[in-house]
Amino acid sequence: MKFKFIRILVVSGSGQQIVGLAKQTDLRYDAQMAMDVVAQMKKFVEPESVAIFGIPRSPMSVTGGGTLDVLTNLVNQGYQGRIYPIHPRGGKIQGLKAYASVMEVPENIDLAVINLPRDLIPGLVKECVNKGIRAVAILTQGFADADDDEGKQLQRQIDDFVRGTGTRILGPNTLGTANAYINFSSAFMETQMEKNPIGFMCQTGVFFMSLAGLKLMGKAIDLGNGSDIHFSEGLEYLEQDAETKVIGLHIEGAKDSARFLRVARRVACKKPIIALKTGRGEWAARSIQSHTGSLAGGDKIWDAAFKQAGVIRVDDVEEFTDTIRAFYKLAPMKGRRVGVISYTGGFGVMGIEACQKYGLEVAEFSPKTTSLLGEILPPWQGVGNPADLGPAIMVKKISALETLETVVEAIFDDTGVDAVLGIFGAFAPSVGAAYYQVAEKAAMSHPGKPIVFYFYGPFVAEALGEFQARDGVMAFPSPNRAIRALGHLADYSEFRMKS
Amino acid sequence: MKFKFIRILVVSGSGQQIVGLAKQTDLRYDAQMAMDVVAQMKKFVEPESVAIFGIPRSPMSVTGGGTLDVLTNLVNQGYQGRIYPIHPRGGKIQGLKAYASVMEVPENIDLAVINLPRDLIPGLVKECVNKGIRAVAILTQGFADADDDEGKQLQRQIDDFVRGTGTRILGPNTLGTANAYINFSSAFMETQMEKNPIGFMCQTGVFFMSLAGLKLMGKAIDLGNGSDIHFSEGLEYLEQDAETKVIGLHIEGAKDSARFLRVARRVACKKPIIALKTGRGEWAARSIQSHTGSLAGGDKIWDAAFKQAGVIRVDDVEEFTDTIRAFYKLAPMKGRRVGVISYTGGFGVMGIEACQKYGLEVAEFSPKTTSLLGEILPPWQGVGNPADLGPAIMVKKISALETLETVVEAIFDDTGVDAVLGIFGAFAPSVGAAYYQVAEKAAMSHPGKPIVFYFYGPFVAEALGEFQARDGVMAFPSPNRAIRALGHLADYSEFRMKS
Repeated sequence: MKFKFIRILVVSGSGQQIVGLAKQTDLRYDAQMAMDVVAQMKKFVEPESVAIFGIPRSPMSVTGGGTLDVLTNLVNQGYQGRIYPIHPRGGKIQGLKAYASVMEVPENIDLAVINLPRDLIPGLVKECVNKGIRAVAILTQGFADADDDEGKQLQRQIDDFVRGTGTRILGPNTLGTANAYINFSSAFMETQMEKNPIGFMCQTGVFFMSLAGLKLMGKAIDLGNGSDIHFSEGLEYLEQDAETKVIGLHIEGAKDSARFLRVARRVACKKPIIALKTGRGEWAARSIQSHTGSLAGGDKIWDAAFKQAGVIRVDDVEEFTDTIRAFYKLAPMKGRRVGVISYTGGFGVMGIEACQKYGLEVAEFSPKTTSLLGEILPPWQGVGNPADLGPAIMVKKISALETLETVVEAIFDDTGVDAVLGIFGAFAPSVGAAYYQVAEKAAMSHPGKPIVFYFYGPFVAEALGEFQARDGVMAFPSPNRAIRALGHLADYSEFRMKS
Repeated sequence: MKFKFIRILVVSGSGQQIVGLAKQTDLRYDAQMAMDVVAQMKKFVEPESVAIFGIPRSPMSVTGGGTLDVLTNLVNQGYQGRIYPIHPRGGKIQGLKAYASVMEVPENIDLAVINLPRDLIPGLVKECVNKGIRAVAILTQGFADADDDEGKQLQRQIDDFVRGTGTRILGPNTLGTANAYINFSSAFMETQMEKNPIGFMCQTGVFFMSLAGLKLMGKAIDLGNGSDIHFSEGLEYLEQDAETKVIGLHIEGAKDSARFLRVARRVACKKPIIALKTGRGEWAARSIQSHTGSLAGGDKIWDAAFKQAGVIRVDDVEEFTDTIRAFYKLAPMKGRRVGVISYTGGFGVMGIEACQKYGLEVAEFSPKTTSLLGEILPPWQGVGNPADLGPAIMVKKISALETLETVVEAIFDDTGVDAVLGIFGAFAPSVGAAYYQVAEKAAMSHPGKPIVFYFYGPFVAEALGEFQARDGVMAFPSPNRAIRALGHLADYSEFRMKS
């Protein structure tokens, strides 16, 4: 049996050892070096000028795989920097003057993007170095990711050549970088961008296409094979970037794990870092063994290391996007006590159950809240958490939305409550907007507590869409997903309080 | 602290003991009794005539909570049976002749639906019994579900009265029943129905509103408090019902767990049963203890009992709808070996990881499949599972969809493969339809193997919608969810082979 696993982490020892090691070496941390790294990374993420190698003479339309040529994509995005197409036959390409060699470009170039067959790359990298380009993104596949010796040899050749030149390599096997704030993308894939406060690093460019419910992040770096630029460099850039409030990482393996975890811990004390680390499980472990002859149980080490570094680990792409959105949309969660409001006892129980599952607590309402609920509910109904408003509406024929507003306000005001989960039926297309009004009002008057919703019913898609387009509150299609997001918020607050 | 937990199971001993006990008592199983139960349940689920107590004189429009009156909902659904409104002032209600008492109705009545204040119910039930109505659904809340003594007393009064009369009670605290095949619903909530092969039982009527991605089931029974009719009776009905192919259960607790599990095991040998059992976790356990003074760890008993009974347990509403849909849309999965096809190595790894997580295996491709892939992929790329077609499209510029068709066909044909997961980018609105064609063709020529898709990219919603409207294949917004559904299919096939 043969597996393809690319870019595998090699670590040994426990997570504590890794982070311990990282702390010691902190003393050797060189602030000047960090500033150099940031300046270098700015060439990749905020280029004012870019040279592109490997453009077809006429623009590509989007193909079966969703790809198109780098120049077309860049022009479509509306990038305002200087663009230098490089093509041996010169002339004009897509209306821009093309240069036969990068050496002929009369100005300075911040970034070179290369998408040509692999055997041409070492020669082109040399030209870039000679031209004084400090940032080179190699999109081409078939280097360390290839199964043959030639690919590995070519990559070594490039690595050896650039070392010490001041030029650094992103990739190979990358889509490069994207930056919504300057409409820049070096990808050969239609990039979905949005000026949001998410800084993103990944080891597969597919994330540039956006996932369900999450447009590509404000700023993104695809490390690809990660032969040179790796997570630490990207984290140092995102750490100081004022536009980045939340950091998302898709990790297959980290080359320099001690340095990565040291930097991650420092950054996590300022901005939340959410990591989707893939390669869990026996198949992956077996594959790691076949590469390194060591290390079963590597995944537990990652768990421990992430925990110490304050990095929030998620399990799949859906949890990844849910969590990233939660961190940039919701208020922080300062404790673990959740108040649940629903119109149905059955789904209220599910909300309570989810709290238990994701490490949160069922809030105990104050006498004030309890007495307010007592006035609203029918006399025979027990008052507690979850607060089930169904019978009140059914028996006492009171207005659902007004009651909700009163109850949400009371529960939010309760000092025994750190967050609110609302469970409601989307029985009409307009429901989402109505609930959003209530939620937004509550969220604005209680900026220190998050509020999330779970919607069921025939118009769930409409209700979720309504919430997704807005800020400050979030809605989910299951109580588990709503509470899981709150759980991550609470974990991060706890880390920040301790660190 | 006060919790509201309604209808809690009381069991002791291990799951094995429960099922063991169930098997012994199988000898006492009375086929005649089962037939009586089925005849009784048909009055609830397939009524030819219905009397309705508690209708406003003018139709209610949908209120804040999504509710409306039972008669309006029933008429809206297009029910063709006889409807008898019962109202003390007689006259006409919504164009139908109303009777001051059920005794005045000149014909036989299959089902009575009562939605009036709780203290009126015992008297009305007596009238129904006197009229010879064998099926009475009590929608009213505030009986065993109430916190006061009066509610419990009223419920006991009803229970005692009907015992031995031949009349049986559904509820109280129920939405009653729904049957898409005869456009019938007794709910005071807009019921979402669809003639699909799903038989459903629940302990909260909210399911009648439909969940994300799943319209209400073909036939549904809300047990409510379950004072009389319970899961066993419903299962016996669904067992013999030719229109039901898949059974979904939402369980808070089972009154007669030994009988329930015995019947469930028998039914599971014919039709898959998917159960969402709520009340997991310490908070729930604590609440159970405060009711019975016993039984921590009750949840593990349920796990064991479900497993022995061949019932597929799911963890939340999203997994519930995913799994129910998988069983009625997909081919059975006869083994555990999954072939993964993707356009990106990074997401291929996630597919592999999900297999491990959900108890499936990474298929080893046959030499024939391997050699076909070898021809398609660039020479430097390793051939294996996942089959990453990205480089082939990128480097060899081949057509994505045609290649996919060839590869899907080859992997489906491979005797070492039991199911296929495709991981693709929805980069345009038309992508879903194109992939659906490929998937449908493959599914039809291989009726013994399921195929599922995971879509990422900007047009995920469109792609999922395309697949949701069709039969035979399914698409999901994460690899975990796609593989989890396959895992349940494989577990059930294994149960059927063993039993």
